[in-house]
Amino acid sequence: MFDYKLLSALAAVVEQAGFERAAQVLGLSQSAISQRIKLLEARIGQPVLVRATPPSPTEIGRRLLNHVQQVRLLERDLQSAVPALDDEGLPERLRIALNADSLATWWAPAVGDFCAEHHLLLDLVVEDQTVGLKRMRAGEVAACLCASERPVAGARSVLLGAMRYRALASPAFIARHFASGVSAALLPKAPALVFGPDDFLQHRYLASLGVDGVFEHHLCPSSEGFIRLTEAGLGWGLVPELQVREQLENATLVELVPDKPIDVPLYWHHWRNGGQLLGQLTEHLSRSASRWLVPLA
Amino acid sequence: MFDYKLLSALAAVVEQAGFERAAQVLGLSQSAISQRIKLLEARIGQPVLVRATPPSPTEIGRRLLNHVQQVRLLERDLQSAVPALDDEGLPERLRIALNADSLATWWAPAVGDFCAEHHLLLDLVVEDQTVGLKRMRAGEVAACLCASERPVAGARSVLLGAMRYRALASPAFIARHFASGVSAALLPKAPALVFGPDDFLQHRYLASLGVDGVFEHHLCPSSEGFIRLTEAGLGWGLVPELQVREQLENATLVELVPDKPIDVPLYWHHWRNGGQLLGQLTEHLSRSASRWLVPLA
Repeated sequence: MFDYKLLSALAAVVEQAGFERAAQVLGLSQSAISQRIKLLEARIGQPVLVRATPPSPTEIGRRLLNHVQQVRLLERDLQSAVPALDDEGLPERLRIALNADSLATWWAPAVGDFCAEHHLLLDLVVEDQTVGLKRMRAGEVAACLCASERPVAGARSVLLGAMRYRALASPAFIARHFASGVSAALLPKAPALVFGPDDFLQHRYLASLGVDGVFEHHLCPSSEGFIRLTEAGLGWGLVPELQVREQLENATLVELVPDKPIDVPLYWHHWRNGGQLLGQLTEHLSRSASRWLVPLA
Repeated sequence: MFDYKLLSALAAVVEQAGFERAAQVLGLSQSAISQRIKLLEARIGQPVLVRATPPSPTEIGRRLLNHVQQVRLLERDLQSAVPALDDEGLPERLRIALNADSLATWWAPAVGDFCAEHHLLLDLVVEDQTVGLKRMRAGEVAACLCASERPVAGARSVLLGAMRYRALASPAFIARHFASGVSAALLPKAPALVFGPDDFLQHRYLASLGVDGVFEHHLCPSSEGFIRLTEAGLGWGLVPELQVREQLENATLVELVPDKPIDVPLYWHHWRNGGQLLGQLTEHLSRSASRWLVPLA
């Protein structure tokens, strides 16, 4: 079998983003960690880490981490039967990639009790869907929540529901830019908010109103910042309905065009052989997500 | 003088994260953009772009972008006098790096009117302070808001005030983990929330209570997600007071130890020769930030 002391050292360096913290977490000296990594590399005959700040795994390093992640999930299933085998005595961690808007809204209430009950710690990674699935493929995460259905090899995807987005702006913004109504001629000159280069929701919305091509926009890669900028009248943007219930009630944010939402599906991707805990979390999410998400039309 | 057609193509490819979008924004074909980049590289005698997805600048590419950014800021000063010189007819953009918590709280109300009045579009980049300053040094951003005072060469820093953080948890979390009071013995076993590998606020808070070394924690790289996880009882964490006024009033979040805040200073770093608009924004922030920030003790 593999030497898991060496593999744990590799996992710790990557997960803790450095040799020093890895040493602290494993209760070893930094030079012991260093030696384990070197020994691992000597055995494999190639480097497993790129020595940068923070250190990142090489291609073969990624494949080893993928393996470690899956072994850990399988070990978890045995732990309740044979607790003495777990020499670290630490609670289980799951690394999960998810979209920023889910994390800013329904994710925490959906998993809170589950985590407390199973003594589960989360390493959350905020990624747009393409990168999230890439991390899944590389074995860097145990699961991934994203808008894309197609699972990577070895994983399954399950539809949890859809997030409903509405194109919102402050009343002052609408008065300034659309005093005589929203039109395809005015839209490109009224600043939009765009989350980042992979966010095409605003493009889709504009296309549905007959606007193609370039439009003025701010870039704001933060869910909460997005709402704050909308409220402060910097621009209009597509915002999860879940996140602005209060603002819609108070009419501090209003829809550009009445009742014209965009629904974005959310799929939960998880390893097929991901162990019992991941399976239970998957069941839990499948059961409960409909409290926050809408059915996909 | 430099050929700014070539440099604009480089800037567009990096800012739009791809050749296709760069072409769209500049109203050129993709092959025209490609040729301009190749011509630029032929003149310089070395590559300016790493052809990855998204493309990233090489070392020399970064220095050219730095230069473009500064030239744009200087051009802005002339535009009101000689508007015809601006052949693109686009509003001004400023790329600014800032911490996630500022963006989630006071940033938007502080700059909203300023942006509308000056027809300024923002490219916001969320970065922890080290990376923010690195981007400043590389000329990728015009300004940077972070906790570190020391400016990079060619820039100035000005103290805007401090954000006040409080260590908060839900009443249910406190009942579960600290039924008989918060103690140094219990703290490491009660899951904390940590923003990412460079977030040491929770470590500082624990150290002030006599806890050193490893403690259980979730990782959550999202300001809003941080609050949601705290509310859902997954852990305790240091949260900007500004962001949870309502939760503190309702007592849906409570302090672990009464009235024991941590104040984190915020410095505004900006180029010395950054042009009039950046100067005006700096003055505006210096004047208005105290509405949201506390004086640094």
